[in-house]
Amino acid sequence: MGVPASLWYRHVLRVRYQESDQMGVVYHANYANWFELGRTELIRQMGVTYRELEGKGLILPVTDLQMTFRKPARYDDVIAVYTRIVSFTNVQLHFESQVRTAPAFQLTSPPALPTEEPTGELLVTGGTKHVWLDHNWKVTRIDRTAPELFALLTGKQMS
Amino acid sequence: MGVPASLWYRHVLRVRYQESDQMGVVYHANYANWFELGRTELIRQMGVTYRELEGKGLILPVTDLQMTFRKPARYDDVIAVYTRIVSFTNVQLHFESQVRTAPAFQLTSPPALPTEEPTGELLVTGGTKHVWLDHNWKVTRIDRTAPELFALLTGKQMS
Amino acid sequence: MGVPASLWYRHVLRVRYQESDQMGVVYHANYANWFELGRTELIRQMGVTYRELEGKGLILPVTDLQMTFRKPARYDDVIAVYTRIVSFTNVQLHFESQVRTAPAFQLTSPPALPTEEPTGELLVTGGTKHVWLDHNWKVTRIDRTAPELFALLTGKQMS
Amino acid sequence: MGVPASLWYRHVLRVRYQESDQMGVVYHANYANWFELGRTELIRQMGVTYRELEGKGLILPVTDLQMTFRKPARYDDVIAVYTRIVSFTNVQLHFESQVRTAPAFQLTSPPALPTEEPTGELLVTGGTKHVWLDHNWKVTRIDRTAPELFALLTGKQMS
Repeated sequence: MGVPASLWYRHVLRVRYQESDQMGVVYHANYANWFELGRTELIRQMGVTYRELEGKGLILPVTDLQMTFRKPARYDDVIAVYTRIVSFTNVQLHFESQVRTAPAFQLTSPPALPTEEPTGELLVTGGTKHVWLDHNWKVTRIDRTAPELFALLTGKQMS
Repeated sequence: MGVPASLWYRHVLRVRYQESDQMGVVYHANYANWFELGRTELIRQMGVTYRELEGKGLILPVTDLQMTFRKPARYDDVIAVYTRIVSFTNVQLHFESQVRTAPAFQLTSPPALPTEEPTGELLVTGGTKHVWLDHNWKVTRIDRTAPELFALLTGKQMS
Repeated sequence: MGVPASLWYRHVLRVRYQESDQMGVVYHANYANWFELGRTELIRQMGVTYRELEGKGLILPVTDLQMTFRKPARYDDVIAVYTRIVSFTNVQLHFESQVRTAPAFQLTSPPALPTEEPTGELLVTGGTKHVWLDHNWKVTRIDRTAPELFALLTGKQMS
Repeated sequence: MGVPASLWYRHVLRVRYQESDQMGVVYHANYANWFELGRTELIRQMGVTYRELEGKGLILPVTDLQMTFRKPARYDDVIAVYTRIVSFTNVQLHFESQVRTAPAFQLTSPPALPTEEPTGELLVTGGTKHVWLDHNWKVTRIDRTAPELFALLTGKQMS
């Protein structure tokens, strides 16, 4: 698109017992769930909710997922998921994600302002690509079917 | 109902790594999933599939779940889930479930005939209660909305 | 024990997409995870963490689980899990749990004071029983192996 | 390594209700679990089990995961996970995975012979990279710490 990546949005969570496995660390597939939580909260902070989008008949399935695991998270750790929009068109969206350690007080902090500089020890990096579909699972151009949303995305990238 | 409980239907599975937790055993909530697999396969062996029922607009949510944990299952164990119908009416269904150890060859055995005598070491016992709902989440009398299904249930109990 | 049940401790969470199923509601087994989150946060508010207890070689597996489902939670809902200690001995612990709707601002509120009166619409009720085991999975009397913990439990009940 | 990729090993499973989400399809993170099942069964067919390897103090965590989603799997579908070894060294292992549709009879078929030609409609492709660690999470050379295993890998590639 030629537009720069968005700032990083932060979502903080505590690791659940169920997310651990018998290696004593977080089972690797769970980071894909956390990436999703990060995307959901980024969209919410931008001013819409993914639930509303689905209510309008739009879905945004994952077409590609990539993750690199550097260090494991463990049960009861406090974790920050940082998410940013790398690029988008009227039919696609590409997010980048980082999982980092975080201080416990951030669990009950109000959403932080988006930042250029994620903090905390880096555990997992990766990203997902998505395509906008209508309720018949057909590709949809959101500049036409959801122009407010497209304007939001465009605005965020510019700011 | 005054009708005796059905025979026990068996479904055999191998424990997945993701189902273990950092205690080195199966995380307790996963047994609720296995109970569901047992119910699904009981219904299939009776001659219908739960997928078909949902396709007709019927759903069968869980209203009550009870589980008693005696011994833990572990990663890579081969497990038999035994399921029987304890009682039913035209709006309700009550299953009983047992999780037991099983020999590996049963993983690729064709479905066993229902039995009065489950075998293997007993790990978890319990059961679930369900109510038949239509697609608006309203209680539905299946003797009217799915008479073939009701006949199947009635026949099974009698045989 | 003759002691009254503890007050209710509250933990607030937002429903994850992964926790939904194709009925469009939270898959029932996930409430068992939420009960666990509630117990974890109750213990933390009492002044210890379950992680520390495991670090000392104590584990607290579930021996019984009971749940009654009244109304479904849905993706993106804000949910309060209320948990209290119903009874305990030096080898056992019995929790009661309620899942209720909650306002979004509670997600980032500091832990609430324990209460006699949970609020919000009631969705799921239930409870779990547990036994204290040592690292060899043998029953352990925590008045001997973890007297500070036992004092905490006794004190909480009294207060 | 200069050695060709191994043949494809097949593992067949049926999609669980819990694996569906409110889009009515399999939640994307679950394919990462299925990739793991495929790897586990490939190793078993080669003549060892991952459980035994962990019993000897070896672990094989995922360092990279990549998935491309072409078509969704749905509840109750029968699915084949095809897995092959793309490359390996004495410290690393790289698997490739494909998720395809499969006929129901394969659920209870004995393990198929490895093949050059996976069949069924292609739903998801991807792969994982792994590193061999000892029980202290230090990289270990398996030609030294598990020479039988290394011989097995070498032999498979050659055959």
